[in-house]
Amino acid sequence: MHIHALGMQALKAGVIGASGYSGIELTRILLRHPNVALVFVTSDRWVGHTVAEKTGLPSELPYVSVEAGLAAAKDCRVVFLAAPALSSLELGPTLAEKGLTVIDLSGAFRLKDAAQYPPFYRFAHTARALLEQAVYGLPELFRAQVRGARFVANPGCYPTAAALSVAPLLEAGLVDLQTLVVNAASGVSGAGRKVSEDFGFMEVDGDFRAYRTLTHQHLPEIRQTLSQLAGAEVPLVFTPHLLPVKRGILSTATARVKPGVGTKQVQQAFADAYGNEPLVVVRPGPDAVRLADVVLTPKCLVGAATDGAHVVSISAIDNLLKGAASQAVQNMNLTAGLPETLGLL
Amino acid sequence: MHIHALGMQALKAGVIGASGYSGIELTRILLRHPNVALVFVTSDRWVGHTVAEKTGLPSELPYVSVEAGLAAAKDCRVVFLAAPALSSLELGPTLAEKGLTVIDLSGAFRLKDAAQYPPFYRFAHTARALLEQAVYGLPELFRAQVRGARFVANPGCYPTAAALSVAPLLEAGLVDLQTLVVNAASGVSGAGRKVSEDFGFMEVDGDFRAYRTLTHQHLPEIRQTLSQLAGAEVPLVFTPHLLPVKRGILSTATARVKPGVGTKQVQQAFADAYGNEPLVVVRPGPDAVRLADVVLTPKCLVGAATDGAHVVSISAIDNLLKGAASQAVQNMNLTAGLPETLGLL
Amino acid sequence: MHIHALGMQALKAGVIGASGYSGIELTRILLRHPNVALVFVTSDRWVGHTVAEKTGLPSELPYVSVEAGLAAAKDCRVVFLAAPALSSLELGPTLAEKGLTVIDLSGAFRLKDAAQYPPFYRFAHTARALLEQAVYGLPELFRAQVRGARFVANPGCYPTAAALSVAPLLEAGLVDLQTLVVNAASGVSGAGRKVSEDFGFMEVDGDFRAYRTLTHQHLPEIRQTLSQLAGAEVPLVFTPHLLPVKRGILSTATARVKPGVGTKQVQQAFADAYGNEPLVVVRPGPDAVRLADVVLTPKCLVGAATDGAHVVSISAIDNLLKGAASQAVQNMNLTAGLPETLGLL
Amino acid sequence: MHIHALGMQALKAGVIGASGYSGIELTRILLRHPNVALVFVTSDRWVGHTVAEKTGLPSELPYVSVEAGLAAAKDCRVVFLAAPALSSLELGPTLAEKGLTVIDLSGAFRLKDAAQYPPFYRFAHTARALLEQAVYGLPELFRAQVRGARFVANPGCYPTAAALSVAPLLEAGLVDLQTLVVNAASGVSGAGRKVSEDFGFMEVDGDFRAYRTLTHQHLPEIRQTLSQLAGAEVPLVFTPHLLPVKRGILSTATARVKPGVGTKQVQQAFADAYGNEPLVVVRPGPDAVRLADVVLTPKCLVGAATDGAHVVSISAIDNLLKGAASQAVQNMNLTAGLPETLGLL
Repeated sequence: MHIHALGMQALKAGVIGASGYSGIELTRILLRHPNVALVFVTSDRWVGHTVAEKTGLPSELPYVSVEAGLAAAKDCRVVFLAAPALSSLELGPTLAEKGLTVIDLSGAFRLKDAAQYPPFYRFAHTARALLEQAVYGLPELFRAQVRGARFVANPGCYPTAAALSVAPLLEAGLVDLQTLVVNAASGVSGAGRKVSEDFGFMEVDGDFRAYRTLTHQHLPEIRQTLSQLAGAEVPLVFTPHLLPVKRGILSTATARVKPGVGTKQVQQAFADAYGNEPLVVVRPGPDAVRLADVVLTPKCLVGAATDGAHVVSISAIDNLLKGAASQAVQNMNLTAGLPETLGLL
Repeated sequence: MHIHALGMQALKAGVIGASGYSGIELTRILLRHPNVALVFVTSDRWVGHTVAEKTGLPSELPYVSVEAGLAAAKDCRVVFLAAPALSSLELGPTLAEKGLTVIDLSGAFRLKDAAQYPPFYRFAHTARALLEQAVYGLPELFRAQVRGARFVANPGCYPTAAALSVAPLLEAGLVDLQTLVVNAASGVSGAGRKVSEDFGFMEVDGDFRAYRTLTHQHLPEIRQTLSQLAGAEVPLVFTPHLLPVKRGILSTATARVKPGVGTKQVQQAFADAYGNEPLVVVRPGPDAVRLADVVLTPKCLVGAATDGAHVVSISAIDNLLKGAASQAVQNMNLTAGLPETLGLL
Repeated sequence: MHIHALGMQALKAGVIGASGYSGIELTRILLRHPNVALVFVTSDRWVGHTVAEKTGLPSELPYVSVEAGLAAAKDCRVVFLAAPALSSLELGPTLAEKGLTVIDLSGAFRLKDAAQYPPFYRFAHTARALLEQAVYGLPELFRAQVRGARFVANPGCYPTAAALSVAPLLEAGLVDLQTLVVNAASGVSGAGRKVSEDFGFMEVDGDFRAYRTLTHQHLPEIRQTLSQLAGAEVPLVFTPHLLPVKRGILSTATARVKPGVGTKQVQQAFADAYGNEPLVVVRPGPDAVRLADVVLTPKCLVGAATDGAHVVSISAIDNLLKGAASQAVQNMNLTAGLPETLGLL
Repeated sequence: MHIHALGMQALKAGVIGASGYSGIELTRILLRHPNVALVFVTSDRWVGHTVAEKTGLPSELPYVSVEAGLAAAKDCRVVFLAAPALSSLELGPTLAEKGLTVIDLSGAFRLKDAAQYPPFYRFAHTARALLEQAVYGLPELFRAQVRGARFVANPGCYPTAAALSVAPLLEAGLVDLQTLVVNAASGVSGAGRKVSEDFGFMEVDGDFRAYRTLTHQHLPEIRQTLSQLAGAEVPLVFTPHLLPVKRGILSTATARVKPGVGTKQVQQAFADAYGNEPLVVVRPGPDAVRLADVVLTPKCLVGAATDGAHVVSISAIDNLLKGAASQAVQNMNLTAGLPETLGLL
């Protein structure tokens, strides 16, 4: 009943990889989006079942194979890739050639320096032309580029949280870049739908631990964004941790501030950066950013404070929404000229 | 049946503040300690009940008032203060004058610079002579001093975890002191037995957040220890977080390494520091330090790694044991000339 | 923008007790309901703050005192009482006299036998005329009565879950009434917003226990409903338990079946009872009813199975929604002649 | 150092299946048992590693294959089978023929009626002679038989909890057998060390559900025990549920009481049954039985209450201890003429 709510034709959309946690969230958002008609969803594991059967969402759309999805894509205006990076690497160029808009939720087209793929993703990049064209879809930082994009590399969850907490400090030139540190913690859904003893209740409940220290694939992505914003190399150290919760990322950034920087400058930087942003909420300080407040929402909460020596800036997002699915739809809205938060709030 | 197991007379001991989480753990350890006879336990809330009734521990000792405890203390060799800092500030000098050994689990006698008390503890220090004499009881770092101590300031939970993860790097001179950052996360028992909506299940489950950013009372304590080890001021930033688990602290320290420092030097530093320590376990790297592995034990796990630019060093302890009660008994053993881990393993 | 969506004037509504867990859910639903204009919300603890400030919901409505709420009520078509039973007992008659519709979420007007109040609610009932008029608002069982009601006693959370799982068996006459047993488990939000050590994370996490065994105030309510459906006294035993989760109730009913009753009769009974119900979903069996599937939804899941000797029937609801707030709005819709699920899905 | 503490030669013992959750607990208990020398542990997955490496327990014993374990068993006095039922079915007779004592933690030798194995365990029983000889090792109910046993079928976790809560009522003849109902809930470790999406953190946290309703393999075991105690067939219905906790079982039994039965008779029944039991603690009532109080202990808590119509009796155990490993050692102590709780408290 919502279709054409804005007097426009519904965008026909498809999702490849619709049974992962992000894919399910994406399906949920697209089904209720007033200007989208979801026309196909693919899932190897759920072929033959309907969306309603497997997720309880109100849709009788059947899950189909990737091949069937690609065939159906020719009638689409936009296709979302919610599959592993290697799948995106293969499918991305194929879909791009069809002339439709692609929003890729994997990491396959995020790193402009193709040389980073072998060490961090364990594959050599085979689609460098598309890699160059791909636009990094963090709307609050790169909105203008996203508007004109045909191929959007949707940011990773940690990179979204980290970049949004640090960007205002870099844009206002308040910190010593050499001292930037990001520690972050993610709920278990961040690991995707792998069946592994590592993510069993017996292992996770009551535990907390770091993982992929110094080697996480989001490290070069965060460095790339921060370096771009700073106009200089940012030698970041980033340590992700696994939280005993289902959803959400809390990211804690610290840095030494430049001489003379105080509370006023820090607050001004965040007000300047996010005063008009519909999906970033500036809280009174870092302690007011709580994971539970942001889970199940498309928003990012941020809060920062300084004692005149260091600044601590904390952000929180739902890793499956602002860290994946809702940000993908935010990007789709921008590429299609729709209101940026349509279907998200 | 264990008394005199070492051919020595049992140490008569008492606990003031025995109904807090740390006080209960302390009671548990002292009751099973082969060379301790627990002679009194105080608790305002449990006066008139026995240890068995309130905790299930095998002792018919009754909880008594602080006044009754002080009277009973005259027959003791050692008294543990497991009460709030303001209580320790008042009771510490009184007990010290009786000539017995005092192990204070509060923060009242940890900070050598009395000027730090008003901003971080919200009281002016009124027992400066004792503050000067008090020995900071982190055995792995200051064992010699503890051996001769009559008044031990038992370290805080975060400071224990943070100092043990960073000390080897400082002792070996591997890091740029200006870049040290500690992020840590604690289970809910770290907040003590306050009844507060903040620590209700509805608030904590599924949440993660920082608290007392830049103002936590353990910040000057960590700085004091690290500065002492480094022989220079360490301008640390420390951000504590609240984990949705009952027990345990995981502390993640990062720093830039000096030129030429690699994996070999880092591993050597930890081997040198802890190779002979019975209660510190060096794990293969930071990702191998898991909170769940250390909870309910008196140990500290540590693991570090470097990529040649930064070092990440992670430690984990049970906040109520190595972060409080078992470390207090470790200190008692040292002051009494007993084997350091007696009664702990 | 939704107001008048059905070509009707918006119902002006108010909520007394809007800062409890159920009150917040009610506020959330009413704010997004297309045919409701929320005109006042009361909260003693939040007077002077807005809904947006305290809950993040998109409304600048201020919380006011009960007195101010009662004054504002004269312009309302419907008032929800989400306050303790004693408050409802006092406010219910006052509001009813104003000629508006009242939906009472407390237990104050649920038990037709006033003699049950002293033992189970610890007060004598002082509004017996209204108690007689009040309609028990379990729409799936008593829809016709609710349609004409001016004063609705909104059912308790456990009674909703229990009654919906057992009703089809009683209506089809399949079980021995003397053998009915209901065990149920609720998330912590069921206890309301009390600040109590009992509901602290340290007490609840990792624990499971029964409470108010044989004395819970929902026991006579469940018996009343089941006896009414059975046309005979049902001597039920009901044991509630506290689950270490935030939200949701799972209710497990067992009974001996009458001779000759098998799977076919049981399935038919549930199909007959709920085949056309929009908010009750019949699952293939009791093991297919999972708490996590129903939390945050206004639905009830039910599933039953028999081995020819016993029947096991399990239901699950969100205690704050179908067990409180969404059922209250479902009842409001019925009393106002609106589509029953308007604003709920 | 404890060996020979009682002036007896240490019992040489081995564990087959030492890497499951129960097997690890068993290893832990046997290593600290003063009269046991653990001589072998088997584990397919951990062959080549030591106990210390995989569990942190203080033992350099290597995990070996089952074949190596069987060879080593010839020097043992007692062998524990902590393997799946089918393995026990095969290994039980082999070990029994060697003349050593066998404590089998699986269900392979618990059901006296071999015809129950195909429907509930999905295999036909192939060792019926041994099945007849096997003694059901629930010491509090069948201590005399266990003392003389060479082959002990260690009870299941649910059957231990259920039988201990109901036995006093049956022994005192207080209840209508036709109305007995047991609902129980277990932590995730009850499912064993399967890697399954069902037991992933994402599935379990925040959830609660029944499983194997009317078909759980512990159903005939509970019926067998209760029928034996009652001297008549007990047509029990038993519904197990999965709790979002790691460890522990809480079992809630209900029944109608016979005319004239009141609180006094119920309390007397429990006092008579457990007044002298070292490992069963009678609490003041069902609400005083909390899962968290019994986890990590070898005890069973029980509490019961009646309103003159029904009785509710609740018990709690650690499923891996009293429900498996510690009960196995309790049985070993009995068969060996050692004090029953030696090594357990």
